[in-house]
Amino acid sequence: MHTYQVQSGKKITLKDWDPADLSLWDKGKKEGIKETEKLVKELQVLQEKIYAQQKHRILVVIQGMDTSGKDGAIRHVFGLLNPQGVFVKNFKVPTAVEIAHDYLWRVHAHVPGNGEIVLFNRSHYEDVLVVRVHNLVPRTVWQKRYDHINQFERMLADEGTTLFKFFLHISKDEQKERLQARLDDPLKHWKFNVGDLEERKVWDEYTTAYNHVLSRTSTEWAPWIIVPSNRKWYRNLVIAKILVEKLGKMDIKFPDPQSDLKDIKID
Amino acid sequence: MHTYQVQSGKKITLKDWDPADLSLWDKGKKEGIKETEKLVKELQVLQEKIYAQQKHRILVVIQGMDTSGKDGAIRHVFGLLNPQGVFVKNFKVPTAVEIAHDYLWRVHAHVPGNGEIVLFNRSHYEDVLVVRVHNLVPRTVWQKRYDHINQFERMLADEGTTLFKFFLHISKDEQKERLQARLDDPLKHWKFNVGDLEERKVWDEYTTAYNHVLSRTSTEWAPWIIVPSNRKWYRNLVIAKILVEKLGKMDIKFPDPQSDLKDIKID
Repeated sequence: MHTYQVQSGKKITLKDWDPADLSLWDKGKKEGIKETEKLVKELQVLQEKIYAQQKHRILVVIQGMDTSGKDGAIRHVFGLLNPQGVFVKNFKVPTAVEIAHDYLWRVHAHVPGNGEIVLFNRSHYEDVLVVRVHNLVPRTVWQKRYDHINQFERMLADEGTTLFKFFLHISKDEQKERLQARLDDPLKHWKFNVGDLEERKVWDEYTTAYNHVLSRTSTEWAPWIIVPSNRKWYRNLVIAKILVEKLGKMDIKFPDPQSDLKDIKID
Repeated sequence: MHTYQVQSGKKITLKDWDPADLSLWDKGKKEGIKETEKLVKELQVLQEKIYAQQKHRILVVIQGMDTSGKDGAIRHVFGLLNPQGVFVKNFKVPTAVEIAHDYLWRVHAHVPGNGEIVLFNRSHYEDVLVVRVHNLVPRTVWQKRYDHINQFERMLADEGTTLFKFFLHISKDEQKERLQARLDDPLKHWKFNVGDLEERKVWDEYTTAYNHVLSRTSTEWAPWIIVPSNRKWYRNLVIAKILVEKLGKMDIKFPDPQSDLKDIKID
């Protein structure tokens, strides 16, 4: 069975990974959506325990090309969790103050504390992706960042954070269809950003940059998962399934009560 | 001439370092204080340029046993700089929210941005000092932190931060005198903390912990300076001298004006 996990230290290229793969599910879309709903319910229970236990810190990094479904995955997989313990942080173009600091500064500020699940919609990986593709800093600067990032994530893991990193993998044709759909449907016009067309022109450069990210920063403590994302329902199913499976193996449980509750009498 | 810098990778022990050493200055205390005043004036000019240039980020870490003079060094060496570009961050006992995150989280939040000088009065090093001496986390946890810290400081350096790390070195006898002085002088009573006596009981354990810190985290990009601090005036002189010398070698200058000012006419 395919786990979609990039082996640590292995050099990979995205052209070997099928964005339309469906090998984890052979019962079709309708049953797949039902399965995801079931998994999301399990995730709700797990998250409630994580919040109550105040022990684990869960960081979920979501990366992918424009239109790959980062927002959709967040809405469908995490949308029903208790917002009290789940936080989404969108990393956009850095502000002047952010640019005046190292690139991990704004990211570190938002990592999860005990009992929290934090979703990064884009992340520090943009500092070796868009920054590289558009030459925003010299090569000598961004080249050192793979090591920084591995070490940063290692520190987080050593100190008690569990990391999930999902790359939402779509084909260039699929992107074309999704951009066209945004043009054709007035209700989707707000999502259409002319800048996306400029980024589409450098699709190959982004693919190269992602090949390096996935090859150099998939580690034992923070492996990358390449999620086949041409089908939205399958993308959600894979993310939910991997989360439930891995969290299910962790020591996640309601904490013991503070004292023996049977002796307590409420007058 | 002694530079007081710990060589990267070298195992040192503080008993080989004389806290009463005066070898950088042979003209006595009175002239030494005058020299420090001169150096502080040079530091003021350098800091004004750093602030104007908005390019360099200067991080000064100050560590030392209780009564070693951390507050005094900050007041005397940095007290006359422009507070607009100079910030002091005191790291005290972590709050509940800080404890719920990795130990570098609260530290990273305060690193300098462009044009800033930030002084850490205590720092992330407490997480391998007090934490170790008082067994606040298991050995398996704090042992990994030397590498984290080196890598964190390396990232800061790669991204443009210049680091100074000063260990203020006093003898146990000198600490006794300073604590006694705080007891004897009503104006110093506010500084007397009975907790300091408890910490004094584990002086040797702190010395061992510092020996490891100084041996394992003095790197090419962030070397430790062991400042002989039994004499306060000499401590200030050494810190000011090292700062002025190192900053003087950097590309610190007022930035070019935005356009040719001689063509500008103010009506």
